[in-house]
Amino acid sequence: MSRIESVGVIGAGVIGSGWIARFLLNGIDIAVYDPSKDAPKNVNKVIQNAERAYAQLLTSDLPKRGTLTFENTVSDASKAADIIIEAVPERLSEKQSVYDEIELSTNNNVIIASSTSGILPSDLQAKMKQPERLIVAHPFNPVYLLPLVEIVGGSKTYKEFIERASSIFTNIGMFPLHIKKEIPAFIADRLLESVWREALWLVNDDVATTEEIDDAIRFGFGLRWAQMGLFETYRLAGGELGMRHFISQFGPCLEWPWTHLMDVPEFTEELVDKVSSQSDEQSGQFSIHELEKKRDDNLVDFLKVLKENRWGAGNTLKEFEDRLNKTKKRTDFAKLDLTAPLLTLKTKVRKEWADYNDHMTESRYLECFSDASTEMMAIVGVDEEYISSIGSYFTVETHIRHLDEVLIGEGVYATTQVIHGTGKKLHLFHYLYHEDDSLLATAEHMLIHVNLKTRGASMPSELVINRVEAVYEAHRKLAKPEGLARAVGDKV
Amino acid sequence: MSRIESVGVIGAGVIGSGWIARFLLNGIDIAVYDPSKDAPKNVNKVIQNAERAYAQLLTSDLPKRGTLTFENTVSDASKAADIIIEAVPERLSEKQSVYDEIELSTNNNVIIASSTSGILPSDLQAKMKQPERLIVAHPFNPVYLLPLVEIVGGSKTYKEFIERASSIFTNIGMFPLHIKKEIPAFIADRLLESVWREALWLVNDDVATTEEIDDAIRFGFGLRWAQMGLFETYRLAGGELGMRHFISQFGPCLEWPWTHLMDVPEFTEELVDKVSSQSDEQSGQFSIHELEKKRDDNLVDFLKVLKENRWGAGNTLKEFEDRLNKTKKRTDFAKLDLTAPLLTLKTKVRKEWADYNDHMTESRYLECFSDASTEMMAIVGVDEEYISSIGSYFTVETHIRHLDEVLIGEGVYATTQVIHGTGKKLHLFHYLYHEDDSLLATAEHMLIHVNLKTRGASMPSELVINRVEAVYEAHRKLAKPEGLARAVGDKV
Repeated sequence: MSRIESVGVIGAGVIGSGWIARFLLNGIDIAVYDPSKDAPKNVNKVIQNAERAYAQLLTSDLPKRGTLTFENTVSDASKAADIIIEAVPERLSEKQSVYDEIELSTNNNVIIASSTSGILPSDLQAKMKQPERLIVAHPFNPVYLLPLVEIVGGSKTYKEFIERASSIFTNIGMFPLHIKKEIPAFIADRLLESVWREALWLVNDDVATTEEIDDAIRFGFGLRWAQMGLFETYRLAGGELGMRHFISQFGPCLEWPWTHLMDVPEFTEELVDKVSSQSDEQSGQFSIHELEKKRDDNLVDFLKVLKENRWGAGNTLKEFEDRLNKTKKRTDFAKLDLTAPLLTLKTKVRKEWADYNDHMTESRYLECFSDASTEMMAIVGVDEEYISSIGSYFTVETHIRHLDEVLIGEGVYATTQVIHGTGKKLHLFHYLYHEDDSLLATAEHMLIHVNLKTRGASMPSELVINRVEAVYEAHRKLAKPEGLARAVGDKV
Repeated sequence: MSRIESVGVIGAGVIGSGWIARFLLNGIDIAVYDPSKDAPKNVNKVIQNAERAYAQLLTSDLPKRGTLTFENTVSDASKAADIIIEAVPERLSEKQSVYDEIELSTNNNVIIASSTSGILPSDLQAKMKQPERLIVAHPFNPVYLLPLVEIVGGSKTYKEFIERASSIFTNIGMFPLHIKKEIPAFIADRLLESVWREALWLVNDDVATTEEIDDAIRFGFGLRWAQMGLFETYRLAGGELGMRHFISQFGPCLEWPWTHLMDVPEFTEELVDKVSSQSDEQSGQFSIHELEKKRDDNLVDFLKVLKENRWGAGNTLKEFEDRLNKTKKRTDFAKLDLTAPLLTLKTKVRKEWADYNDHMTESRYLECFSDASTEMMAIVGVDEEYISSIGSYFTVETHIRHLDEVLIGEGVYATTQVIHGTGKKLHLFHYLYHEDDSLLATAEHMLIHVNLKTRGASMPSELVINRVEAVYEAHRKLAKPEGLARAVGDKV
């Protein structure tokens, strides 16, 4: 893996700044040239975005951040660099004059990588003295998060520069995709261009608005493409028969006049063969059923994070779940059976609760108990509305006994006994059961009522006090739970 | 919201089966007609996929599953239905003869919804007696997970059927997108077609393989499109100046001969205005900075779930983190300073650990303590290799004191004191500190060494016993922690 110490960046717009953020936070020093006096401010904003994102993305510490300097000339930004990133506007002559300056100030071992999204590397290197070191390294916004970088060499590029550059990009967390045949716009932007053209037709012809087009993407095939591309997705649509079946079924549709842009390659047996065998090579190690499971796992998780983030398809899921919950009614307090512990949780052990061995992991037992406390609070009147206006109960002390294991996907439920409940204090004992009624764990909690503005202890409302006392009066007649008031390590 | 009780499904291929799974698991009865004798088996597979996915997706219980019957004729499958889903092959005449049969056996209030991905509803309804009830409802595979359904009416369709159908689809968790102008292939498939054509050219011309094309999608713009579409993404690329800036910069590129398919709408001031003002309408309520944050949050979370699922861009992230971790070395046991509790955790409070108020939630304190136990185990020799071959320590009892709150994004660290450690037992006391060194919580744990095959108590290896005893001998000379051996509710 090539580790480097210093990068020169020429041009600090959206793409240049993204490169700077990624390299800098990977511990690499950067020298920048950009004629705009706003460049340092704009670069700094992008670095802040990247720092914010990495703090959530990475569980590992990054190396100590590199140093960032702004230079007054292309030469000064280039002279100490192991690799130079050129990210100036998409004009061939402008790029070529940047390379002139770089060639004067660096030795011929330094890689020159252009961020162009479409100009051919052979054109970029045409006037260079050492054209062998020029490559295209085309990244995607935001550069500090999206892994893809398209690597393309020109006719005069040496392989060793392509390999060294790929290794440098891999080392800072990217996915270098080496495109072996040089064409304008490479791969991704050709696909994007074709969608962009068709989308502009749809807007132009008043078929759809920009919002409707975006929704048609992000509520549908966009969710598929974050994990599988076009061909692997269609392989799945072909069912067990795979790509050859799909393409022989769907292929002819390409001759229907569906889109504005409809020149198609001739649908020869040779092309069908090529696509099918490449698809086998790509995905053949997985059965269709395995691919379906993987696709669904990823889709489920995308929808869940979008729900957490209140965005796009996640909002649809949130509204759906809210409707499901609305039909679920909590029993009237007056009608509760207080002669036994109350049911406070019923759920399945979720995939993300697994340890390495597919058992529920330690902290998720407390998540179950915490949810049971929340339900117990709601039963006595501390619901969302109460919490937003009056206060809540905070757990100050917890004792858990782990008695048995439970596997991902199995059902569990919890019941809760009020041990004591007067004034600000609420002392609870939860039982967590397997769906087969065997006991998995118990938890004893002391909660204190808190005013959420002062964050200090406070008295609950009268309704809450009365309800807590009613449950307490009933539950004190029940047998004391086994394990109550235990300290860790007490003899049984 | 329209709730319905019964659906007829004609055609149970990949799309028909997806519809069946979504309706059935939403508590709606289904009658199916499909001439293939394999239909019940194939439908069942899709229902199983859907059940598996929903168990992870939903935190709420679904209604009791509907009943599923397979009928021998289109009429039998249609007669009791509130809405009929037609999902037969894409041949106009075949679809029209299905509608003939449906019209004979249902009253004219029943919606007929075609899943066609491209045929015009006006053509579908051309020969119907009650054409007003025919709509297109075009879903996306897998239908039970992807929310998008394109709704299109023909020239004779009544608005009330479109509204009722949309409401039915919303109610089962979908996102109906009403396309007001009827064109072949609607919106999504026009975009897909254009990409498909360009991708086939790339394969045909040997520019890239199917795998390289898929990688260019899923490591790059695919990750953007799962959350924002084409226009909102490009609005961001325009920076603070937004869409008008982007389109005036990028628009002209469309006239370069980049793709095979390059007929473009004339780039008039009117078109620029239309795109820009529609984009303002769509996204103008957010500043560019807000959109960037949202985009980054979603990308970070997509990458994290892909890492968990060991797939695509998540593999790149995993390899990057593994490299970062490799450079981190654990201190040799012999060189550890045992005259104080050992450092066993250093991390930041992650976004997903938040309660509704942006403080770390209860169960995540235990997650921190559990990670500290894992590190303590690794220090005494119970590392990944030991666990996979010999055994591990299981927590059997825990006592937590919550002393202070901590906000998302703040740093925390933990230290660990061995209270007792001989034979199978390991008694630990963890301190969790804020990065400003104030104490947030303590946890006391009893762990037992377990053979992971028998899941029963067992003796650790000699190395582990010796190391545990060495730490215990040193730590027993330290002051006893405050709060040691407390039971919940003990007086201070």
